[in-house]
Amino acid sequence: DLNQCENYFSRETLDRLSEKRTDKVWLEARQSDPDTVYLLFSNLSPMVSSSQEDDNAGAETKLCRFRYEAVKDLLQEPATVLIFLGVEKRNKPSSSSSSSQTEEGVQEPPAWFAIGTDEDAAGLLKRCREKNCSFPKSPNRDLLKFNEEEAGVVAQARSVLAWHSRYSFCPTCGSSTKLEEGGYKRGCLNSDCRSLKGVHNTCYPRVDPVVIMLVIHPDGNQCLLGRKKIFPAGMFSCLAGFVEPGEAIEEAVRREVEEESGVKVGPVQYVSCQPWPMPSNIMIGCLAVAISTDIKVDENEIEEARWFPRQQVIDSLLRRAPPAFTVPPRQTIAHQLIRHWIGMNSNL
Amino acid sequence: DLNQCENYFSRETLDRLSEKRTDKVWLEARQSDPDTVYLLFSNLSPMVSSSQEDDNAGAETKLCRFRYEAVKDLLQEPATVLIFLGVEKRNKPSSSSSSSQTEEGVQEPPAWFAIGTDEDAAGLLKRCREKNCSFPKSPNRDLLKFNEEEAGVVAQARSVLAWHSRYSFCPTCGSSTKLEEGGYKRGCLNSDCRSLKGVHNTCYPRVDPVVIMLVIHPDGNQCLLGRKKIFPAGMFSCLAGFVEPGEAIEEAVRREVEEESGVKVGPVQYVSCQPWPMPSNIMIGCLAVAISTDIKVDENEIEEARWFPRQQVIDSLLRRAPPAFTVPPRQTIAHQLIRHWIGMNSNL
Ligand SMILES: Nc1ncnc2c1ncn2[C@@H]1O[C@H](COP(=O)(O)O)[C@@H](O)[C@H]1O
Ligand SMILES: Nc1ncnc2c1ncn2[C@@H]1O[C@H](COP(=O)(O)O)[C@@H](O)[C@H]1O
Ligand SMILES: [Mg+2]
Ligand SMILES: [Mg+2]
Ligand SMILES: [Mg+2]
Ligand SMILES: [Mg+2]
Ligand SMILES: [Mg+2]
Ligand SMILES: [Mg+2]
Ligand SMILES: [Zn+2]
Ligand SMILES: [Zn+2]
Repeated sequence: DLNQCENYFSRETLDRLSEKRTDKVWLEARQSDPDTVYLLFSNLSPMVSSSQEDDNAGAETKLCRFRYEAVKDLLQEPATVLIFLGVEKRNKPSSSSSSSQTEEGVQEPPAWFAIGTDEDAAGLLKRCREKNCSFPKSPNRDLLKFNEEEAGVVAQARSVLAWHSRYSFCPTCGSSTKLEEGGYKRGCLNSDCRSLKGVHNTCYPRVDPVVIMLVIHPDGNQCLLGRKKIFPAGMFSCLAGFVEPGEAIEEAVRREVEEESGVKVGPVQYVSCQPWPMPSNIMIGCLAVAISTDIKVDENEIEEARWFPRQQVIDSLLRRAPPAFTVPPRQTIAHQLIRHWIGMNSNL
Repeated sequence: DLNQCENYFSRETLDRLSEKRTDKVWLEARQSDPDTVYLLFSNLSPMVSSSQEDDNAGAETKLCRFRYEAVKDLLQEPATVLIFLGVEKRNKPSSSSSSSQTEEGVQEPPAWFAIGTDEDAAGLLKRCREKNCSFPKSPNRDLLKFNEEEAGVVAQARSVLAWHSRYSFCPTCGSSTKLEEGGYKRGCLNSDCRSLKGVHNTCYPRVDPVVIMLVIHPDGNQCLLGRKKIFPAGMFSCLAGFVEPGEAIEEAVRREVEEESGVKVGPVQYVSCQPWPMPSNIMIGCLAVAISTDIKVDENEIEEARWFPRQQVIDSLLRRAPPAFTVPPRQTIAHQLIRHWIGMNSNL
């Protein structure tokens, strides 16, 4: 099966070139390269330009791209966080047309960096020549408006920046830490710290695994969806929860479904996954077959959970008016899991 | 497919009852319950009793279980870390025979707790009535000797204890933190800290997702295995690496394989997973189909990587002497992935 499912936020537009993260000379040369692309983040939000249309009409958003000359003063600020994102993949040329020469004369594709800065947002926006620039305020909604290529870059950059914003101190000894390895490491500044002896996860970005699952009724013709209070009116989605220490994915699915809905789950099947950079989760999408049907929701987390018949789900996906409920947007793995289940058994 | 693969460390012997973690009255009642089971950890190692046979002969190890009376002094020590592990599952009665009455007279199954203590190991061992007790020193080897039921409990307990041992300070502000919610949360003691406003992963145990993959040659009849310098002589295993921020599982597989071996990967298929409590990883096991064959190892990480023909792999699994190489032990997901690939195409 060569056509694997690709979810939003999943595309790797850049080659991360992780071996270059420890090469300070190379990184510095790329920083001042005129072809290098910089993205600006304020408060974990990327600077974007939007087309004129109404915000809610699904208008596409584009990342504002900067050159070295436009940001080099920011690179000098002590509060600036600089992340090396990677270089454009050779076989998939991106928007930047030119590429630079190395000493050996080999063409190197443009490098990308993300800058996190605490300079005030109004001042940052003035640096950009595009129209309608902004730092959008609602990540769960606004970060879903990129094309697939840019969405992947945003996922990477925002996750790493979110880690730096919360993990400035060493969890092992409480000392300050400093950014290393192109933004992929934080080292403790206390030379006696245990975290400096051997390899420890305290020094590396955190990625939180989350299971998200579409639970299928034992009759095969209904699925279990729930809603949180904060959801838009009428929207129902898949249940989800954090994988706990010492737990397998399939067991996390069974535990979270039972905790949140009271429904017991038997077989679990992995379908696909999605990075979710709010702040740095990896959503592991599964189908799960229920072996009980009574619903008893955990009211701390879930407002309501219900079995939805297949036909109602199809009507919602096709937006046949008036649907009994609305599904989450197509950029979410919840939507894709629901579509996957419907597609498995029909010609939709 | 009801018979899902169950890997070592994956069995959930206990019901975690996560909703009870915030119920202090309930937790305290269970702590002093005479049926409650306590496990003792020193330096992240559980106290175990071993059968007399040679350590290397695969002798089974058993957890030493304690009652409240035998450990209640430890619970008073300020340095003690107490983790609520869960209660025995009702339908799968474990070794503890009795169970206690609640106020309403309903039988409640025994609760389990793990204790992490810095009391000296020799003193702790004297508390136990079993023979041949010890705190084994090599987790990667010694923690593979439990039966499936106990292995699951060890995975949970050790992962959570390892988190407490490294994350005593708030990564957001550097202040001290205190243990909460039965051991599943650490709250910052600085009342002005950002980590106390809203929900943040800084307060919850860390679980690191790792991809581990068996790469299949384009001809379908060879697989790619590598060895690190620290492996026992002759052993080769699957490649593996940490999932990075903003990365899908399948992309992490492609990146890590190319970084470590130079081999390019096309389709990736999830097979099964395994918690790995050294300190708190979840190993996500995949098959990956190579689309190139030249090997160029990353010498920082890998000593050697090779394509092994199917017949040599079968010989190793069956320990036909003299095998060209040895596979990792059956308790590892690497072993199970290799076995899965062989089993897919043969009657082994
Ligand atoms: N890594 C984490 N990040 C945020 N919340 C977590 C994390 N781990 C556990 N939680 C808790 O899990 C709750 C969400 O529940 P669930 O997503 O169903 O597991 C949050 O409100 C937190 O109390
Ligand atoms: N969460 C983590 N825990 C430990 N090491 C990490 C982590 N994330 C990245 N690393 C780095 O990854 C190396 C191991 O490489 P790999 O397992 O192939 O990704 C370690 O030596 C660390 O430098
Ligand atoms: Mg949830
Ligand atoms: Mg949860
Ligand atoms: Mg939950
Ligand atoms: Mg590796
Ligand atoms: Mg890696
Ligand atoms: Mg690696
Ligand atoms: Zn430190
Ligand atoms: Zn704090």
